[in-house]
Order: sequence, then structure tokens, then C-alpha cells
Amino acid sequence: MKKVKVGIIGVGRLGYEHACNLATRVPQTELVAICDGNEARAKEVAEELEVPAVYSDPKALCEDPNVEAVVIVTNTASHPEMIKIAMEAGKHVLCEKPLADTVEKCLEVEKVVAAHPELVFMLGFMRRFDKSYRVAKQKIDNGDIGDVILVRCYSQDPRAIIEGTLAFAPKSGGQFIDMCIHDIDLIRWLTASEPKSLWAIGGCYEFKQYKDWDDGDNVSCLMQCENDAMAFLFAGRAAAHGSHVETEIIGTKGTLRIASTPADSMVEVMSEHGVCRECFQDFLTRWHDAYVTEAEVFADHVLNNTAATPNVFDGTKSTNIAYKCKESFLSGEKITL
Amino acid sequence: MKKVKVGIIGVGRLGYEHACNLATRVPQTELVAICDGNEARAKEVAEELEVPAVYSDPKALCEDPNVEAVVIVTNTASHPEMIKIAMEAGKHVLCEKPLADTVEKCLEVEKVVAAHPELVFMLGFMRRFDKSYRVAKQKIDNGDIGDVILVRCYSQDPRAIIEGTLAFAPKSGGQFIDMCIHDIDLIRWLTASEPKSLWAIGGCYEFKQYKDWDDGDNVSCLMQCENDAMAFLFAGRAAAHGSHVETEIIGTKGTLRIASTPADSMVEVMSEHGVCRECFQDFLTRWHDAYVTEAEVFADHVLNNTAATPNVFDGTKSTNIAYKCKESFLSGEKITL
Amino acid sequence: MKKVKVGIIGVGRLGYEHACNLATRVPQTELVAICDGNEARAKEVAEELEVPAVYSDPKALCEDPNVEAVVIVTNTASHPEMIKIAMEAGKHVLCEKPLADTVEKCLEVEKVVAAHPELVFMLGFMRRFDKSYRVAKQKIDNGDIGDVILVRCYSQDPRAIIEGTLAFAPKSGGQFIDMCIHDIDLIRWLTASEPKSLWAIGGCYEFKQYKDWDDGDNVSCLMQCENDAMAFLFAGRAAAHGSHVETEIIGTKGTLRIASTPADSMVEVMSEHGVCRECFQDFLTRWHDAYVTEAEVFADHVLNNTAATPNVFDGTKSTNIAYKCKESFLSGEKITL
Amino acid sequence: MKKVKVGIIGVGRLGYEHACNLATRVPQTELVAICDGNEARAKEVAEELEVPAVYSDPKALCEDPNVEAVVIVTNTASHPEMIKIAMEAGKHVLCEKPLADTVEKCLEVEKVVAAHPELVFMLGFMRRFDKSYRVAKQKIDNGDIGDVILVRCYSQDPRAIIEGTLAFAPKSGGQFIDMCIHDIDLIRWLTASEPKSLWAIGGCYEFKQYKDWDDGDNVSCLMQCENDAMAFLFAGRAAAHGSHVETEIIGTKGTLRIASTPADSMVEVMSEHGVCRECFQDFLTRWHDAYVTEAEVFADHVLNNTAATPNVFDGTKSTNIAYKCKESFLSGEKITL
Repeated sequence: MKKVKVGIIGVGRLGYEHACNLATRVPQTELVAICDGNEARAKEVAEELEVPAVYSDPKALCEDPNVEAVVIVTNTASHPEMIKIAMEAGKHVLCEKPLADTVEKCLEVEKVVAAHPELVFMLGFMRRFDKSYRVAKQKIDNGDIGDVILVRCYSQDPRAIIEGTLAFAPKSGGQFIDMCIHDIDLIRWLTASEPKSLWAIGGCYEFKQYKDWDDGDNVSCLMQCENDAMAFLFAGRAAAHGSHVETEIIGTKGTLRIASTPADSMVEVMSEHGVCRECFQDFLTRWHDAYVTEAEVFADHVLNNTAATPNVFDGTKSTNIAYKCKESFLSGEKITL
Repeated sequence: MKKVKVGIIGVGRLGYEHACNLATRVPQTELVAICDGNEARAKEVAEELEVPAVYSDPKALCEDPNVEAVVIVTNTASHPEMIKIAMEAGKHVLCEKPLADTVEKCLEVEKVVAAHPELVFMLGFMRRFDKSYRVAKQKIDNGDIGDVILVRCYSQDPRAIIEGTLAFAPKSGGQFIDMCIHDIDLIRWLTASEPKSLWAIGGCYEFKQYKDWDDGDNVSCLMQCENDAMAFLFAGRAAAHGSHVETEIIGTKGTLRIASTPADSMVEVMSEHGVCRECFQDFLTRWHDAYVTEAEVFADHVLNNTAATPNVFDGTKSTNIAYKCKESFLSGEKITL
Repeated sequence: MKKVKVGIIGVGRLGYEHACNLATRVPQTELVAICDGNEARAKEVAEELEVPAVYSDPKALCEDPNVEAVVIVTNTASHPEMIKIAMEAGKHVLCEKPLADTVEKCLEVEKVVAAHPELVFMLGFMRRFDKSYRVAKQKIDNGDIGDVILVRCYSQDPRAIIEGTLAFAPKSGGQFIDMCIHDIDLIRWLTASEPKSLWAIGGCYEFKQYKDWDDGDNVSCLMQCENDAMAFLFAGRAAAHGSHVETEIIGTKGTLRIASTPADSMVEVMSEHGVCRECFQDFLTRWHDAYVTEAEVFADHVLNNTAATPNVFDGTKSTNIAYKCKESFLSGEKITL
Repeated sequence: MKKVKVGIIGVGRLGYEHACNLATRVPQTELVAICDGNEARAKEVAEELEVPAVYSDPKALCEDPNVEAVVIVTNTASHPEMIKIAMEAGKHVLCEKPLADTVEKCLEVEKVVAAHPELVFMLGFMRRFDKSYRVAKQKIDNGDIGDVILVRCYSQDPRAIIEGTLAFAPKSGGQFIDMCIHDIDLIRWLTASEPKSLWAIGGCYEFKQYKDWDDGDNVSCLMQCENDAMAFLFAGRAAAHGSHVETEIIGTKGTLRIASTPADSMVEVMSEHGVCRECFQDFLTRWHDAYVTEAEVFADHVLNNTAATPNVFDGTKSTNIAYKCKESFLSGEKITL
């Protein structure tokens, strides 16, 4: 069992999760280097996970000859530069979503990736690797539900975590770029088509601060794809019950609904509140296994030297659509792509 | 559309429900007479429902020539006498469960019924007339689940209504006679067999008063039927979430579960308690439609002069089994029937 | 208990359901007259329900002095004339939805209703009277879910009944007028606001015939209301599992979902297909109780001489919005109301 | 991060799962030695998992100075000898359930364990480590549901795998020893009490072969514990829908139900069969995470030198109760413990 030697750049909350997976839960990987702007943090994680090399400069990590592949979990704006450094140093790359904070930068990344056809590049839309989504996708590909008529996507964050969300919001890119981009990727993947027109709306229903950022705390968008499939997405920040990501695919012969009530465990509680299932309270719990599978798939591509998806074009396209959503949201007008 | 002219004896809480059904919701019946020991109550209901005749003496009601059928909703101990009065006056009878408060009295009722083969006698085990139970029974009879292996029955009352329950408890006959008898009837009906051995246990887990009445607030019983089908029943008085009657039939080819979460409506509530469905809060809401259907079926039997089930033997057998449960509960020993 | 003496115009499939309810299931009504263009049909139903008067001419029924209120269940195009005849004859009116087949005619009906302030006029959007919808509306009015952010509405018909649907489709007015109008009414009712902009899309995914009628077999629409609440509706004709009407209201403090899996009974079936709940197979079964409650509420308004909702303006507004949806669907453009 | 160096004895189907976990999914363990009677199999797994030492003789593995702890996944009858060899060689032990195939042998193991107080001994009742069971146990310990009234346990195997089950059945010890012992352990754990009386019944409903082994294909047992808590368990081999392990704990203040419909993923499928969730099809998928957590907990005990549960007494007690169940099943009589 050959293992891929991986270095990680960025060990914040999500980066730490990736680091733990790469070091201890993914059989095909060995975590050999950690880089973080906060060097103390990098050292702490390295010690905990027994990782030999620690860096505060991404370039230094990428030049480490022991590193074969780099996992990038830095802020969105820095993704293009990190990808460039890593690939020019000859490293395979798994980069967190979104690809970049502008479409222009996405196109630049496309060039970098194109210049290194011998290297694996994969974008971290982890939902595609969640068991339930894989089951659904396979049923669609099997023809079990016929042609796709409508994809409905919900991405709701628990209001319990709103303070952290608000702190992060100004530099997040906003609901469409930061949150809806997951659903945009799902819509492209599940319909196997591209949106041709869309209309996005929303508002500040509970957290008025979003107005200052030209954003809404709850937004939605209706799209129609080139193959006529329809898609509706809703993203919200005020879910009382928890982290609720739900996706439904209505087809001409059947319907699939993923995580109608995204329960944190198989326990039903019967109490004075009725018969209740408790929801996930944070996204890391919800997607824990998906992140592990994502890293496994990435490592397999590196080991087998095969092309990975989601790829760089998935990154550009989803970013472009997210910006079109935002444009529509701001102008109030329907947009043709 | 010929209508059956019905008189009712007893218009307490459940009797009033029956009276409303007979007067306004059952197309095949006309409520023409009301009798209640509390004559003022009888008058009040008669006025509300525009019923012409009011009595305080059951005999008088039964002698009313306008009355064709009598619905008996008095206390259990009086059922045999009421049945006798009614049938000897030539009236068809629908009697609330249980048939009587002792097996001996049940056997006497059997004689009364046998003496009037021209009259319809039906016992009010209303669960058999609930849509979900009818659907399940039909699937079993269709062979959809193969042979019955196990019937599991829950009858749980909401703790919110415990005060009323406790007030009624001393003269109710106890959990087995008053409450489990419904499940005993279901077990006999769904397995199409009779228990051959049983063991009942229980205790006073929350409401210690039951000890004074040689009873438990929560009891259960395991049975095996002559055809080897197993049955488990549980009756409780402390359900925090509401009125929870659930029945499962496990077969060799499939399983049916009725009212796993007996929801009062189709509304799911997502809140800080999770994703919740609210339960029925009382048995009259749960079984409203079943009581209407029961009266419709009874009226059809009268109009078509056909034999009704549950019949008098169902009454005797379920009462006998309920007493055997109680005997086992008190002695701690397994009992062979 | 005073009863309202009701005459019904139209006893086709849905009219027959109403007739049975008025004659046998609604305590406050007495069905005294039936009119149908097909006189033999009218006679047949009258005989079955023991209704004394039979007509083939609506005017004749409305002139019957024994009739106090008229229930109109004729084709949509004839509603305005029927309402006029009935109200000018001094009768209270319960009219099936939609109010009329054009907005202009709706406005004429408004005048007729305005001219008879002493008479009750009620429009038959029966979903408002379904128990689950009433529970949800009450929770919203209680403030349980805070402010409404999004209303999501599904109206899916079983593909099993498509032949009947297709036969009726050409004169139905199309998905938006015939089917979505229910959801439009719900959106107005649940948000307590009016749409200010909308975009409708769709296509012919399974039944290409709809193209000939400038319609889609599956359509959807995104709306934003004056109070910023968002609404999404989807209407489809190809649901493999049955009649699936689902409504979700996402609020700032909680979410309500009505009929996530609209199960025909409380039975779960465990088989080689998994753990399954069977859906309603037709709308009359789904809405049976709602139609009864609707008639009860109407009768109460007549008896108490109070103003009913949904009223004539609800009819005009929902029709207007439905036509705007259709306009958007045909033009592909967003519409501002 | 110190890692426990583990050797495994037995790499059949379940042993292989454990080996993969120890080698690749449990951060605190390193798999350093594999032993299997089938040496070729041992070598194959060792190669796949890059394990340096391979043995066919358990003694040899236990004498390997590199091995700190031994995981035993051999047939039940051999457990006592394996435990003895390992502990006398100074190794910590995690042994698969059941502890032994007779109560006498369990008592001998108790002596072995008692002779080595410095070593960790843990018994592999993995259900205790499943997330849902841990959540439930914690709620009980928190007092969320008050006192335990009833524990209901289902262990149903899919009929799809019956051939393998039948092949293994003659040497499995039978339903009570092999299958129900999981539920017996859960009952003891969840009620924090010991059964004082029980009655077990069952039969051969679908697979008549079990009669030859003095066993049933479907069996059940009712128990009462010393603290009066009741318990009902059912074990079956004919579940059409899959691997269905469900546990419910009814308390005086609330109820917990674990895996009412044990769904393999979060996907609901709407088709002509209704609204369906697909069940787990095998126990390894259902309990995958529980096995990982079990090994993590074991390793933590070794690293921290703390006492583990389930311990050797849990093994003896559950085995004893399982044999009492079998005795009751065979005699038809209630048994007092």
C-alpha cells in the first residue's frame, strides 16, 4: 500500500480537520508537512499528529522534496497563488472551494493547471463525496428516476453559530460565493447541464448587518439549465434546528430526497415536544465522512495518475454562476448566461 | 338511503362522541333517542343534536318503538344488563368494549345474543375500523407479509391526562381489562389465532397509586398463539409525548408498522428541539374516524341483516385473556390457557 | 341546530363529493336541491342522497325558495354566470376555485358580490381548511416561527392518472391557472403579503402534449412579496409515488413542513423496497376532510351572517397572479406586478 | 501521539474489518502482527496492510515482543484459550463477543483476567460504541427520560444473507448465544440492572432447519430486572428489508428510539413503491464506525492504563442470561435467575 506524502497549507478549523484525516483516517495518505501563517499553530498541530516538517511559508513547504501533494485550506483569495506555487513546484493539489474570489483569477488558475498536465488537480466540493449524494448520483446515472426535472437545494446554517458567521462574513464573498457555490456545483453535477438563465432574490430577514455588505442573510435563486432542467436553491443563516443541507432531485420517473431531516444520529426523542430528531449542529460533523472520502479519492488519483473531478473548470464555472446570482440579486433582474 | 333509527344509552365523554357521529356524521343512521342516568345531560345533548326522545331509564329507551338499534356507552359493569334489556326489546346492539367486567357475565351475554339470532350484535373494538389498521389487515390477508411471526402492540396514554385516568382507575378493571384488551383483540384479529400461553409483568414506575389497586402503571405481556405466532403488548400511562398506540406485525416476507410516530397532523416543526412531529394528545382525536366507520359498519349490518364482527365471542375471549394476563401479573407466573 | 338548506350546481366527480358532504357529513347543512346539465346524473345523485328537488337549469335551482345557499361546482368558465344567477336570486354562494377564467370576469364577479353585501360569498380554496394547514397557519400567527422568509409549495399529481388529466387539460386553463392557483392562494395567505415580482419557467419533460397548449407538464415559479418574503412553487404531473402536495414555511425562528411525505395511512411497509410509506393516490382522498370542513365553515358563516374568507378578492388576486406566471413562463422574462 | 502496537488473531470477515481499522482508521493503534490458522490468508492481509509480522500460531504472535495488545477475532469456543495465551504473555486484550461458549469457561476467563490486574481486558460488544447508542445512554444518564420502564430490542438479519447464516448456524451457539447476547448486553447496560426472571419463546417460521439444532429462526424473550425495569427482545432471520437492529428505551419522562428505520443513507426514494428509505444490507456497514470507536476506546484504555468496559463480568453475565433464555425456550417455562 503505497501512501501519498502530503503537505497541508492552512490548519485553521477546517484545515485541522483535513490534517487529522490525512494523518490518521485516510489509509492512502501520510501527512509529512504542515504550513500555517501562524507558526505556533502549525507546530502545535504537527506535534499532535507527529508530522515531521513545519513551515510558516507556503513556498518552503512546496519545495520540501518529501512532499508529493499539497492540500490547500487557506482563505479563498489566496487560493490561486497557493495553487501556482504548489504546481510549479511539481506537487499535486487538492484545493478547498471556492477556486478563487473572482472569475478572472479562476481563469488564471486554469492556465496554471493546464501547464501541468502530469499533476492531479482536484477542487474540494466535498458534498460530491458524501455517501448519500453518491447513492443519489448513482441512481440518477442508472436512470432510476428518468430525466431530471428539478433540483432543489437547501443550505441552512444554524442560527446558534451566527456570531462566528458574522465575523467571517465580510471577507467570505457573501452567500452566493461562499455558501450557494456548493449547491451550484451540485446542480451542475446532478443535472449534467449548465444554467442558461437565473433570477436571484433575498433579503435581510433576521440579521440586518448583511445589508452593509450588499448581501442577504437568506437568499434564493431559480435557474433553468440548457437541457431545460430547473433548479432552485435557498441559503439561510437562521435555522433554529441546526445545520440543514437538503437536496431533492425530481425526475420523470421518480424522486430522490437527500437529508430531508438531517439527523445527527439515529435517535428519536419522544418528549413533551413531540417525536423529535436532533439535527446536525455544525457542518464538520455533517460532512466528516465526506471529507475523509474526498481525501481518499484524491490520493487514489495521485497514486493511479488519473484525472480528478471536481476539476478546475468546475471551479471556474461555479464561481461564474455564483457571481451571476449575486449580480441578479443586486440588480433584481433575471440574467441570461 | 334507508337510515337506521338509533337510540344511545350513556352520553358521557365517549357517549357524546358516538351521539354526534350517529346524529351528524354517519349517513346511514338517525339518532332518535338519548338515555342517560343524568337526565339533564341527556336533555342537553338531545337539544344540541335535535334528538326528539330523551330518557333516564334504559328500559324506557329500549321500549321506544321508534328505536331500531341501541348503542351502549355505559360503564363496563352494566353492559350485560343493558344488552339484555335492549335485545329482549328486539333492538340491534352496538356495545362499547369491554363486553363485561367478568368472564362469567360475558358467557351470560353470549346466551342473550344466541337467543336473538335475528338481531345484529357488535362489540365496539374501534381500532379494527381505523383506516391504517384496515390497510394493514388487508395486506396481511393478501399474503403481502407472509406468515405472522410477531405482533407488537403499544398502548400509551399521555401523562398529561393522568389525573382523569387516576380518578377513573379504581373502577376501570385495571390496565389489562381496560386498556390491554384493545391489543388483545388486535392480536387475535391479526394473528387469526388464540394465545396458548402468556406471561405478564409490570410495576408502578411513576404513579405508585396503582399498587393499591393491585395494578401497575406500566405493564407488559408476552404471548404465544396456537399457530406459534408471538405477541408482545405494552401498556403505559406516562407517555410524555401524547397518546401513542402503535402496532407492528412482523411476517416471514415483510413487516407492517402502524403509527410508529402517531402524528396529530402532517406538520413537521423544526425548532431548537430538532425536527419534531406532534403526537395525538387524546384518544378521541386519534380514533375519531374509526368511531365513525365503526358506526357505519354497524348500520350496514343492520340494514343488510348480516352478522357483525367483532362479535360476542370476541368479547368473551378477549376478556378471558385479559384476566389471564392479570392473573399472571399478580402471581408472577407463566400461564397456559 | 339550525341547518342551512343548500342546492348544488354540478355533480361531476368533485361535485358529487361536495353533494355527499352536504347531505351526510356536514352537521350544519341539508342538501335540498341538485342541478346538473346532465339531468339523469342529477336524478341519480338526488335519489342516492334523498334530495327532494332536481334541476337541469341552474336558474330554476336558484329560484327554488327552499334553497338558501348554492354550492357551485361547474366548469371554471361558467363560474361568473352561476354566481350572478345565484346571488341575484338572493342565495349565499360557495364557489369552487378558480373564481373565473379571466381577470376581467373576476372583476365583474367582484361587482356582483359587492351588490349583495347581505349575502355570504366564499371561494373554495379547500387547502386552507385542511387540519395540517390550519395548524401551521396558527403557529405562524402565534409567532412560533418568527417572520416568514420563504414559502415552498409543491403540487404534484400522480402520473398514474395522467390520461384523465390530459383529457381535461385543454380546457383547464393550464398548470398555473388550474393547479398553481392553489399554491398562489397559500402563498398569499401564509405570507400575508402580495407578490411584487416573479419569474416562471418549466417545460415538457415527460408529456410533450402540453407544448400544443402553450403549457408545460412541470413548471415552477419564484416570487418575492411586498414584505420581502420569498416563495417558490413547483407543479408537476409525473409523480411516480402519488398525489404529493407539500408546503414548507421557513421563518426566522423556526420552520414548518406540511406533508413532507403525504402518507395515505399511518402504515409503514418494510419489504425488499426498504421502509416505505404509501402516498395518497388521488386528491379527493387527500383533501376529503378539508372539503367537509370547508362546507362547515361556509355554513357557519351563513348561519351567523359573518364575512367569509377566502373571499372574492382572493379569487381575483390569485387569478391575476396565475396569469402573470403564465405570461412569464411564455415570455421567459421576469415580471413586476 | 503514542500508538499501541497491536497484533490480531483471526482475519476472517470480521477480523479483516478489525485489521483494517487498527492499521488505517484508528489513530492510536499500529497493526504490527497478524495471525490466522490459514497462513496464506494471514500473509495476504499483512501484505495489503503493510504489517511486518505474520503468524499461524497464536502463541507465537503473543510472544512477539513488539506486540503490546492482542485483538481476538477467532471462533467463540477458542476465546478462553486465546485470552489465556495473550494475557499470560503480558498482552492487553480486546476479545470479540461472546466471551466463551459456556458459562463455566467464562468463569475460567474471569480467573485469568483477575490474575493480570495490570493488563486491560475489554469485550467487544460494539453496539455500546455506536454514536446513536452513546447519545441515548448519555440522555438516560442525564435523567432526560426519567427511570427506565421498558427496553425493547430488535435484532433482525436480512433474509437475503440466510445461506451464509445457515452454514454458520450449527456452530454459532444459536440465536440466544450468538445474536440475542448483543441485546442482553444492551439491556444490562441501559437499565443498569440484572434480569431476575425471564420467559423465552419462538419457533421456525420460515427456515425449518433451525428445528434440527433445537433452535428457532425467530425468537423472543420478556425479562424483568431487579429494579423492575422490563425488557423485551426479538431476534429474527427473515427481514425482507435488511439488517434491522432497533432499540427503544421507554422512561417515566420520555422515550428514546434508536434506528426505528435503520437507513443506509440519508436518501429517500419516491417511486411507485411509495416514499422509501433503504435499510442497511449487512451488519458490517451498519456498525462500521462503532468498530472503529471500540478500537479507539480500547487503545485509550491501554495508553492511559484504565479499566475498560464491557469487562469480563459483562461477558459472563450476558452468556449466563443467554443460556437461561435458551433453557426457557426449550422448556417452555419461565425462569427465575
